[in-house]
Amino acid sequence: MDKFAKRVSSLKASTIREIFKVLGDKEMISFAGGVPAPELYPARELSEISRDILLNNPVGALQYGITEGYYPLREVTSARMRATGALGGDSLIITSGAQQAIDLTAKVLVNDGDIVACEEPSFIGGLNSFRSYNARLAGIPMEEDGMDLDRLESLLKRERIKLVYTIPNFQNPTGITMSLEKRGHLLSLAKKYDFYILEDNPYGELRFSGEDVPSIKSLDDSGRVIYCGSYSKILSPGLRLGWCIAPEDILEKIVVVKQVNDVHTNIFAQMIAYEYLTRFSIEEYIENARQVYGRRCALMLKSMDENFPDYCDYTRPRGGIFLWCTLPEGADSSALFKSAVQRKVAFVPGNACMVDADSPSRHFRLNYSTASDEKIVEGIKRLAEVIKGG
Amino acid sequence: MDKFAKRVSSLKASTIREIFKVLGDKEMISFAGGVPAPELYPARELSEISRDILLNNPVGALQYGITEGYYPLREVTSARMRATGALGGDSLIITSGAQQAIDLTAKVLVNDGDIVACEEPSFIGGLNSFRSYNARLAGIPMEEDGMDLDRLESLLKRERIKLVYTIPNFQNPTGITMSLEKRGHLLSLAKKYDFYILEDNPYGELRFSGEDVPSIKSLDDSGRVIYCGSYSKILSPGLRLGWCIAPEDILEKIVVVKQVNDVHTNIFAQMIAYEYLTRFSIEEYIENARQVYGRRCALMLKSMDENFPDYCDYTRPRGGIFLWCTLPEGADSSALFKSAVQRKVAFVPGNACMVDADSPSRHFRLNYSTASDEKIVEGIKRLAEVIKGG
Repeated sequence: MDKFAKRVSSLKASTIREIFKVLGDKEMISFAGGVPAPELYPARELSEISRDILLNNPVGALQYGITEGYYPLREVTSARMRATGALGGDSLIITSGAQQAIDLTAKVLVNDGDIVACEEPSFIGGLNSFRSYNARLAGIPMEEDGMDLDRLESLLKRERIKLVYTIPNFQNPTGITMSLEKRGHLLSLAKKYDFYILEDNPYGELRFSGEDVPSIKSLDDSGRVIYCGSYSKILSPGLRLGWCIAPEDILEKIVVVKQVNDVHTNIFAQMIAYEYLTRFSIEEYIENARQVYGRRCALMLKSMDENFPDYCDYTRPRGGIFLWCTLPEGADSSALFKSAVQRKVAFVPGNACMVDADSPSRHFRLNYSTASDEKIVEGIKRLAEVIKGG
Repeated sequence: MDKFAKRVSSLKASTIREIFKVLGDKEMISFAGGVPAPELYPARELSEISRDILLNNPVGALQYGITEGYYPLREVTSARMRATGALGGDSLIITSGAQQAIDLTAKVLVNDGDIVACEEPSFIGGLNSFRSYNARLAGIPMEEDGMDLDRLESLLKRERIKLVYTIPNFQNPTGITMSLEKRGHLLSLAKKYDFYILEDNPYGELRFSGEDVPSIKSLDDSGRVIYCGSYSKILSPGLRLGWCIAPEDILEKIVVVKQVNDVHTNIFAQMIAYEYLTRFSIEEYIENARQVYGRRCALMLKSMDENFPDYCDYTRPRGGIFLWCTLPEGADSSALFKSAVQRKVAFVPGNACMVDADSPSRHFRLNYSTASDEKIVEGIKRLAEVIKGG
């Protein structure tokens, strides 16, 4: 009898974990992260709220809660989602981060060997979640306006696909946003070829230029979209709060597997988020984050324009926290990473974001949400030297 | 293509959820719960701690953390476990409640169709977690000193078993504690027949009479025991904090699946627990809980002795929060539940705790941790009348 279940026997700790080991070095300038700017956290407000909750309603905060989530937080989150058109007739549950919403969706929908199509590159945590249920991943290349739907359709003609995973806004890791046209087209493919869409939208509210594009969920009249949202990038990741919107029968199964997974999401954290959303202005927080990230992104791009060699391509995001660089054919960003670390600058090598994470990649991901202006300028300078030297 | 994955297609919301619906009734005396006495929560201390953490180290509390858990909490939890002999050479990670530790262990070890042997009756959340990975459950009857190991061995002679799930102390739902002799015997069976043991110990510290029995994990020299602990019953369930101790290679896989499940457990909650454990005395809290539960258990038993008919049997727990009643052959505790609810008293019908939850059961579970003395006396009186009348 094998020791481990087949679903996890080949699963390894993600490369990201290896990368994070080098970040302990205080002199390292890191563009490898994917976290909000810590100086934005409303610490004083949350401190006040926390004390109040435990003084006024300790039992509510400390006792077991229901699996679907703390009702008032579900209500305010539902109202915010309704305003974007993403809620419609479905209902919403609170999850322990959007990662859990992805994981539970995979558990509920994906049988061993089912194909999950994803943007390539894509979010490592999403891909690993599908892998952990023995899905076969099919990477669909990214274009400037999102996933290449012709490639997707030619795959659909040959193979049955269960689920398409997409991060339509300011995608992790490319920063690319899927066009409205493609969103509609993806939905029509879902109807034609009978698959589900998992729309993962942690960055959608962090737009710093251009106009918002409606969510795929808001366009859906066929019950084919499961939508995941997150408070990680607009409030605090440490609180582990996300949400999931899905057609009733799917959401019911998700609730059942959430119940056996963690019973319910930390209630105190849910109450804190609810109080913050009602007593303070999250819109102000988000507006502030948009400005900070927009400015840092612009500064990083300007530094790259000035310092990177012409043969180095990169995306120009209009929101979110990542951009994606492409080196000439034959380059290997893992090798580049080793040289960069010696020069005390770090990023995420592209192979980590690929379906086949073991093959070399000529791409890499840069994050601009956390470094100071000074470090952005200095880090990009160092990185340019490493690229030119490599 | 089926809509749902095979692993969840037959999974239903647990009966418990149905039961909880009737508990909204303010006049209901509920012995159906499984939660700590809310008046014991150290609300004032936790309120103070929460405010301090967010004022002094907001970024630590609000930013992403590592999957294994907040290091200082791992350390103090490890120290507590080392003192009981349960840690040994293994390491420990923090999980989002012991439920998550069970769930991730099942995900890592159990293939579709693998047999998981469990005590029968057993904890619904554990059983449903195994079901959600398509395990075949084999119920092993309980004796006064724990699982019937002769029955287990006769099954082992016929079938390959992957995992044995046990709650050795004050078991949910029976309140039974496995004898030291059986713990040793179970381990020797694990070596002989090559299976793993999942030792779930949320109630072990809540003993109110007799002597502690060493954990199975502390007796293990063969790396066959995965141990789950919980802060839910000794601090607060709402915080969703548990832990898992396992041999290195298994724990590594558990960390990988935890990473794709919820990235990490709520950091703020982990910091709160750490501060509480270092600044205040959890031993005092536990001692207090022991006294309260011991007193309530004795009162419930006394009321049952005085009021229940002789044909009704029940366990006499020496710790924990549950006891288990047995009606004569042919009785159906689900039918009894309906009559009891009309008399405004509730419990958990035994079928919910069985491998085959659809067959009638002549057993039921009573919880004594939360009701006041007055309600215990009145509720048992009502229940006795319903039993005699039914």
